[in-house]
Amino acid sequence: MSPRTSKWFFEYLSADELHGHSIVETIYHAKTKFQELDIVLTGSYGKALILDGKLQSSETDEFIYHEAIIHPAFIAHPTGPERIMVVGGGEGATLREALRHRTVKRALMVDIDEEVVFACRRHLPSYAAGAFEDPRAELRFEDARKYLEQTSETFDAIVIDLPDPIEEGPAYLLYTTEFYQVVRDRLTEHGVIALQAGTAAPHMLFNLASVVATLRTAFPIVRPFIAQVSSFGLPWTFALATKGPDPRQLSIQEVDTRVKNRIDGPMRWFDGETNAGLFHLPRYMREALSTQGRIIRDNEPLLFKK
Amino acid sequence: MSPRTSKWFFEYLSADELHGHSIVETIYHAKTKFQELDIVLTGSYGKALILDGKLQSSETDEFIYHEAIIHPAFIAHPTGPERIMVVGGGEGATLREALRHRTVKRALMVDIDEEVVFACRRHLPSYAAGAFEDPRAELRFEDARKYLEQTSETFDAIVIDLPDPIEEGPAYLLYTTEFYQVVRDRLTEHGVIALQAGTAAPHMLFNLASVVATLRTAFPIVRPFIAQVSSFGLPWTFALATKGPDPRQLSIQEVDTRVKNRIDGPMRWFDGETNAGLFHLPRYMREALSTQGRIIRDNEPLLFKK
Amino acid sequence: MSPRTSKWFFEYLSADELHGHSIVETIYHAKTKFQELDIVLTGSYGKALILDGKLQSSETDEFIYHEAIIHPAFIAHPTGPERIMVVGGGEGATLREALRHRTVKRALMVDIDEEVVFACRRHLPSYAAGAFEDPRAELRFEDARKYLEQTSETFDAIVIDLPDPIEEGPAYLLYTTEFYQVVRDRLTEHGVIALQAGTAAPHMLFNLASVVATLRTAFPIVRPFIAQVSSFGLPWTFALATKGPDPRQLSIQEVDTRVKNRIDGPMRWFDGETNAGLFHLPRYMREALSTQGRIIRDNEPLLFKK
Amino acid sequence: MSPRTSKWFFEYLSADELHGHSIVETIYHAKTKFQELDIVLTGSYGKALILDGKLQSSETDEFIYHEAIIHPAFIAHPTGPERIMVVGGGEGATLREALRHRTVKRALMVDIDEEVVFACRRHLPSYAAGAFEDPRAELRFEDARKYLEQTSETFDAIVIDLPDPIEEGPAYLLYTTEFYQVVRDRLTEHGVIALQAGTAAPHMLFNLASVVATLRTAFPIVRPFIAQVSSFGLPWTFALATKGPDPRQLSIQEVDTRVKNRIDGPMRWFDGETNAGLFHLPRYMREALSTQGRIIRDNEPLLFKK
Repeated sequence: MSPRTSKWFFEYLSADELHGHSIVETIYHAKTKFQELDIVLTGSYGKALILDGKLQSSETDEFIYHEAIIHPAFIAHPTGPERIMVVGGGEGATLREALRHRTVKRALMVDIDEEVVFACRRHLPSYAAGAFEDPRAELRFEDARKYLEQTSETFDAIVIDLPDPIEEGPAYLLYTTEFYQVVRDRLTEHGVIALQAGTAAPHMLFNLASVVATLRTAFPIVRPFIAQVSSFGLPWTFALATKGPDPRQLSIQEVDTRVKNRIDGPMRWFDGETNAGLFHLPRYMREALSTQGRIIRDNEPLLFKK
Repeated sequence: MSPRTSKWFFEYLSADELHGHSIVETIYHAKTKFQELDIVLTGSYGKALILDGKLQSSETDEFIYHEAIIHPAFIAHPTGPERIMVVGGGEGATLREALRHRTVKRALMVDIDEEVVFACRRHLPSYAAGAFEDPRAELRFEDARKYLEQTSETFDAIVIDLPDPIEEGPAYLLYTTEFYQVVRDRLTEHGVIALQAGTAAPHMLFNLASVVATLRTAFPIVRPFIAQVSSFGLPWTFALATKGPDPRQLSIQEVDTRVKNRIDGPMRWFDGETNAGLFHLPRYMREALSTQGRIIRDNEPLLFKK
Repeated sequence: MSPRTSKWFFEYLSADELHGHSIVETIYHAKTKFQELDIVLTGSYGKALILDGKLQSSETDEFIYHEAIIHPAFIAHPTGPERIMVVGGGEGATLREALRHRTVKRALMVDIDEEVVFACRRHLPSYAAGAFEDPRAELRFEDARKYLEQTSETFDAIVIDLPDPIEEGPAYLLYTTEFYQVVRDRLTEHGVIALQAGTAAPHMLFNLASVVATLRTAFPIVRPFIAQVSSFGLPWTFALATKGPDPRQLSIQEVDTRVKNRIDGPMRWFDGETNAGLFHLPRYMREALSTQGRIIRDNEPLLFKK
Repeated sequence: MSPRTSKWFFEYLSADELHGHSIVETIYHAKTKFQELDIVLTGSYGKALILDGKLQSSETDEFIYHEAIIHPAFIAHPTGPERIMVVGGGEGATLREALRHRTVKRALMVDIDEEVVFACRRHLPSYAAGAFEDPRAELRFEDARKYLEQTSETFDAIVIDLPDPIEEGPAYLLYTTEFYQVVRDRLTEHGVIALQAGTAAPHMLFNLASVVATLRTAFPIVRPFIAQVSSFGLPWTFALATKGPDPRQLSIQEVDTRVKNRIDGPMRWFDGETNAGLFHLPRYMREALSTQGRIIRDNEPLLFKK
């Protein structure tokens, strides 16, 4: 046993399953008003952000997570979103990917936890990579649901980049049918919502199925998909939903053309070929989506144990 | 901390990453002539087979692994394989999936480790589910490579179901260009080879890239794909290779028709829709396949640390 | 990382400290009417008994625990106990050490959990080493406190060999002032009580101090001492209390003479020299005993978290 | 599972046993010229120093370790040591305890690793508690053995405060008969050496027995003893050796008088009562000392695995 592997971060995926990363160093540790925050240097994934004991992203594979939550949704928009909103997204990397779309003229990010954003800007500068300084970006620290309920502004895309909803955590009211209806009402005609939707492990599909069922209460097109974020220790899902456009219908060529015409800089995870594989889930997942899950409501939230 | 989570199996995915399963009970433990064997009851995945500290399969998600190693390859065969061989496959579940294909008239399984097969038959009976008693099946305990080098028999499909090649382990000579050429020579005109090919984690793609590069020395069509085996703790890959047929060209309808006409019993992971998503890897994987990896040779094997 | 160390038993000593033993094999696992039971083969301590996630004893160092709970107390008795009782002691090793005293004519063991005793007799036969077959021994499966409250029998020594009192566990009413007064009333003139009293870690002395304070409500002489049971992962304490005799006053020679005259077979932990060191606790422990702790009562029990 | 327990430091006590501390924060991490260094905030023991994956001391129980390595030895000296030397002792707490002895006029500390001393002064200021600023103290960063071999200075006490000798570590030549003879030659008539001597676990006594056997090649009086350092996860031993005085012969009163006359400030672990218990080891340890162990030599060192 090499000494460098004597410090570990253990993420409990359930009471009976965990994923561990060796810790080289705890770079930053704090209790914010809303959650417990760690930025650690791991032995195999570089620096990682941990909130309330859950790994949120790591330098090695955050490109997968953040491309996955932005590009399939934005590319689904027929002409490219111009006004977009990020709910949460404290690391700044979701904003970074959004701003790579040249069609974007305004990018509003609303995160409730200022300390997470500040810690990530200082200790994970490659994540935002200057996004907060982009003149198209506006950053607000407040309750995103309240903001959306009160504003009359509309958006072409709204991206929900939040941790899983846990007991006492700040996120649970952002996964309900009431919230999705607020989002729908603030989206323009071809508008799209994107979010992460929990694990794809075959015995733990209730969360995904519930998110999909709840999205369906507000949107006619709902497309869940898998993107590999190996540092999470379990296969992971995302979902996008729209008022009309269906990304499954796009050809490889059409997606590659849109990527070329709309997005700056090199793609690492997404392109037409990637898009072609996304929306064909394995059979057991499709069965779970049709038999499991329930509609998540403000007064019947779906909570994870810390 | 609940008492039931006080016993754990930790699989080291690297020196800096591990995946843990709670152990309810060690059902069987032995050192065979070739490897260390554990059958444990885990808290979340049911019973699991562990060889040399590596989880091979679990009751909860073995259907994914074993459907993935058999059906995409067998369905790719234009008329359905009649004579097939399983190399390794000690649990019996690969044989089980193979025998569901009604076209199969002979199924030869060659595993070097008799004790693994006996332990799985006794303690994991749902895996083989009677496959060893099927009159089409023959089971031999010997070195599969030597067998293939000496036989003149040919097969329509050869499935390599082995652990990762580790130091001192029995499997490393079954992942080399020399071995794949032996396999090719023993395959019929539309013959197909299928195997597991290691993790899809973005920083650990050297193994997959090498397996694919090595398969390409022997086969014109090589198709790697991902199947989620969540108990492994990392995204996982498989590959199939053929002398001609290309499963990427099959339509959803064609696959569903072949499934209906050729396979007994209900599908849980595979069907036309699943097949349609398989062969579109994300961009970073395609880039790794074209830039990483090396040809694996008998005298330059690719070994994992125990 | 050697494969044999991939299975572990973790005992949580607190929410922030744990001790781990590699598991070679789970020999026996059951949920009894009262607790969860595991007998495992560890990599360094041989077989071990685990109840509700707490290691109770291991083959390598059980001699220390069981000599410590019997011999200092029995040797303190001026003429040697004749009628003795063991409360709990499911492994049979406390009974074994008691029966080595030739003065013992009757040894009653009362354990509430028949399944623990049966599992230990079958899987840990070296623990009892025939004690249950000794004609002086009687074994009853019932609530020891109720038994003591109802019997009119008296004893020269009563040994309380129980797990720490945990929530929902069977033991907590056997650590209270009410129970110790029942014990005192059932002890003869020179009678002695012995028990384990939890860890000696300097920041966790509240339990020991409370047990000692509670014993003092019933006995004039109370002597806590440390015995190293390294498999426990923390320094461990025991206590004996008497109606008069004080083992601290015994010379090395007197103890050695009593050992020679009264005890069969070789000693491994105890003798006059050992006894001479026992009753001189380090200063911080004496201070904790005089400043911490509270009297444990039936309606104010002291409970550990599972 | 509370989030605060998701980060852990695991110390492997052997391949089959480990002790874990939750990590609240890594305060400092560095690779020095000689070893890997971590200062972490643990959940239950406050801050702790870790060298090469081995916990050296923690805020909660360092008083035990550092009183144990100084006071029994210094009090054994008939008139109190005046010139003393600390070999190693990077935290500064051994020097702190030494300087509490009013008889001390010169205290030389020689540690090879300047970075450890600097890190501890900055991040563990309560350890040295001003000792380095004491005008009686001199601090040198060099090889202590070479220093002792070359100097003509003599000392009344030499304290060896080092990690266990590990492969490639800096300490192994400071545990050999050749080194102990150098120490003896640099000690005055009533001089005393003190050191830590590894675990007291009953199946791991070879190290202690070897240290004691090796000390006996150089000193007529050798007294091993146990002091509980619970954060270490195993019972721990120390040893002192002298050219004549025997601390076992000192009465409780005599020790208390010497403590009062010679030591400043309050005692937490040591006093006459503590001393009276120290030198009576349990029987199995005395047997191991007489049957196990070997003389450690420069060309036959005793090495621990990292």
